[in-house]
Amino acid sequence: MTEALTRPLLATIKSVHQASRRTGQLSPEAKNHALEAIAQALETFAPEIIAANQIDVEQAEVAGLPKPLIARLKLDANKLQGAIAGVRQVAQLPDPVGEVQIKRELDTGLILQRLSCPLGVLGVIFEARPDAVIQISALAVKSGNAVVLKGGKEALHSCQAIVKAIHQGLAQTDFPETAIALLTQRSEIQQLLALEQWVDLIIPRGSNEFVRYIQDHTRIPVLGHADGICHLYVDEAADLAQAVAIAVDSKTQYPAACNAIETLLVHAEIAPKFLPMVAAALQAKGVELRGDALTRQFVEMAPATDTDWATEYCDLVLAIRVVDSCEQALAHIDTYGSGHTEAIVTTNSETAQKFLAQVDAAGVFQNCSTRFADGFRYGLGAEVGISTAKLPPRGPVGLEGLVTYKYQLVGAGHIVQDYSGPKAKPFTHKALS
Amino acid sequence: MTEALTRPLLATIKSVHQASRRTGQLSPEAKNHALEAIAQALETFAPEIIAANQIDVEQAEVAGLPKPLIARLKLDANKLQGAIAGVRQVAQLPDPVGEVQIKRELDTGLILQRLSCPLGVLGVIFEARPDAVIQISALAVKSGNAVVLKGGKEALHSCQAIVKAIHQGLAQTDFPETAIALLTQRSEIQQLLALEQWVDLIIPRGSNEFVRYIQDHTRIPVLGHADGICHLYVDEAADLAQAVAIAVDSKTQYPAACNAIETLLVHAEIAPKFLPMVAAALQAKGVELRGDALTRQFVEMAPATDTDWATEYCDLVLAIRVVDSCEQALAHIDTYGSGHTEAIVTTNSETAQKFLAQVDAAGVFQNCSTRFADGFRYGLGAEVGISTAKLPPRGPVGLEGLVTYKYQLVGAGHIVQDYSGPKAKPFTHKALS
Repeated sequence: MTEALTRPLLATIKSVHQASRRTGQLSPEAKNHALEAIAQALETFAPEIIAANQIDVEQAEVAGLPKPLIARLKLDANKLQGAIAGVRQVAQLPDPVGEVQIKRELDTGLILQRLSCPLGVLGVIFEARPDAVIQISALAVKSGNAVVLKGGKEALHSCQAIVKAIHQGLAQTDFPETAIALLTQRSEIQQLLALEQWVDLIIPRGSNEFVRYIQDHTRIPVLGHADGICHLYVDEAADLAQAVAIAVDSKTQYPAACNAIETLLVHAEIAPKFLPMVAAALQAKGVELRGDALTRQFVEMAPATDTDWATEYCDLVLAIRVVDSCEQALAHIDTYGSGHTEAIVTTNSETAQKFLAQVDAAGVFQNCSTRFADGFRYGLGAEVGISTAKLPPRGPVGLEGLVTYKYQLVGAGHIVQDYSGPKAKPFTHKALS
Repeated sequence: MTEALTRPLLATIKSVHQASRRTGQLSPEAKNHALEAIAQALETFAPEIIAANQIDVEQAEVAGLPKPLIARLKLDANKLQGAIAGVRQVAQLPDPVGEVQIKRELDTGLILQRLSCPLGVLGVIFEARPDAVIQISALAVKSGNAVVLKGGKEALHSCQAIVKAIHQGLAQTDFPETAIALLTQRSEIQQLLALEQWVDLIIPRGSNEFVRYIQDHTRIPVLGHADGICHLYVDEAADLAQAVAIAVDSKTQYPAACNAIETLLVHAEIAPKFLPMVAAALQAKGVELRGDALTRQFVEMAPATDTDWATEYCDLVLAIRVVDSCEQALAHIDTYGSGHTEAIVTTNSETAQKFLAQVDAAGVFQNCSTRFADGFRYGLGAEVGISTAKLPPRGPVGLEGLVTYKYQLVGAGHIVQDYSGPKAKPFTHKALS
């Protein structure tokens, strides 16, 4: 491994911080050249990476780790090729740095510009998936950031082999190798989370519990979300066949995803007809249903408790509640929703407008599946994460989540005293193209 | 006082949250009408407000509170008129809600929009100044937010009289009175800071210690900054007369402001000539100087210690250090700067570019005073606060700091299953105007 990977943590982080001063100044061409060099190095070192991954997978099997974890851990030639193609796709995205967001003359010769710029140092903490190293490193390079990576210990050999390849690739470029560092000790997570002077954003990748732990143990901003309790409300004016299809897709297309629904809210008016239809379709897909008292009048199922309304199942389980109005659905979502994605099925445009306007969530959908809440489907090009925070960036976050901005003001000796008091000069505040 | 001011805190906050659902839906006209109604009610109740303020001022004088605090507390007819004019100015600003930031066809009939929307509930905690109630309430109304206000106990009568007038004004409008609530118990601050489910943004107004206390005691996002340690670097290629004028303005035009400089960095090449010039000009304005060893070779002054580099004086005190290069100035700023505003004086455009690009701060200036870092001077129309956070909003923050956005997706029965697997339909991702 390179020197940066074995030195004590603070020295490593300071070196990454130093490197971030250089990565932030690189031209789009230099960054894209670095991405291509990374892609080629990953191709060159593919056999070594796959061999290292096999060691991790074997050790995980011996240790009896859960099968889904081993599936995420496994990095075969196909998966690696996909990740390398992803690096080249990131190179194709528009450069997020240096965008002129405001250009304004404050007075003659006093020009204000607001420019996008990298955040500085990203701290990425993830569980099993070693391909996350490749994806996050590519996004960091494209956005001019430096990055400190900490993978799960079960992926140690894979991560080390990948970072070694990335460093080899970068050695031929202007992007400093020291800008990408891998931590290997579990104890370093706590230390990393405390370094708010040096780390600008934490990106956790893993289970809800994992993300919540990270959020609870750092003052550094965290991009991500713990809960994804999404609802589908089927209004009295819904196209019922459409509602069945959307409910099935929202629940079963990928039940472990954060944008899958956990609760179905059904207007009482259509409940007698709709509930048997949707229950049959969901049960045919193996979904376990839990209903409130009204729901269970129309379809036999286990009772739902208050705990159900507040639970993200991440599985083929769905809670169902009958509501007497759109207002009641809105109130239920206001109480139990996690601000991720909420959907209504209705042909009544007034009701739809009310729902779209009043629901407070990163995504509010009409007549389509909640599963569309995703950076690639939204056309953001790449997804850094999905945020359920109220403040931007919110929802699926692309490269814009890895940049901030600064104000540059250039004058010719301008002082504020001249713009103060009874003889104050006025500002011109003229927009410049 | 209205009912909302006397009920227990959680009930009050829930009622404010409820009201925020309605304020977020109001048209620009309805909000501007509410602002005009507030302005008129404040005019009508002016004698009552000024009388209430006189009680606060008398009590503060009897209690022997510091003179600057009493000056900030005092609300005479002039100051009140100014605050009322401010309300009408806020009405003139562009409406920050409902801006279409993205409009994109994902596929035929599946339309994505990203729209700006209010945050929900603002929690504003401020020290003495009762006019803050007027300014913040106006900004909240304009941005469609509800707001919970907590002023210092020394301003209690003033704040109650102002909020009573605001409520009377709103009674004639569509903007619910319950959307603006005043807390009156000091113990309620702690409770408010814990209500992250109900309060979306905390805006503290007061001393550095006060802001730091708030930041350290809540998980709700805080808009503001504790420290403002700003530097002026005078390069070897500076116009020295210009550098003197900028140094004097940056330090003395309003020394207590967060955008005043605390440290002057001087290139060694010009130090022998520049230091006596700038020292004379600063001392003529009553500035106490503290220098490093090299500085004291050219001008007699008290020695500066490491503590000085890390101190925001908020007073007529300036630390001075001689550096041997722009790089050394950058390193000093990287170590001691608080990310607020940093300036260089130079005629060398290459050095200026390096400084503007590499300094990591909300504002980076060339050849002008750091005192320009201000929302009004930047032309933002109104200033909600200045943020030294790395993530946006950063620097002086206008109304955009009080809004977020949400994604609305409207389809016609679209499900993700159709866009997955070997026969996946492609997305069109077509920009719509």
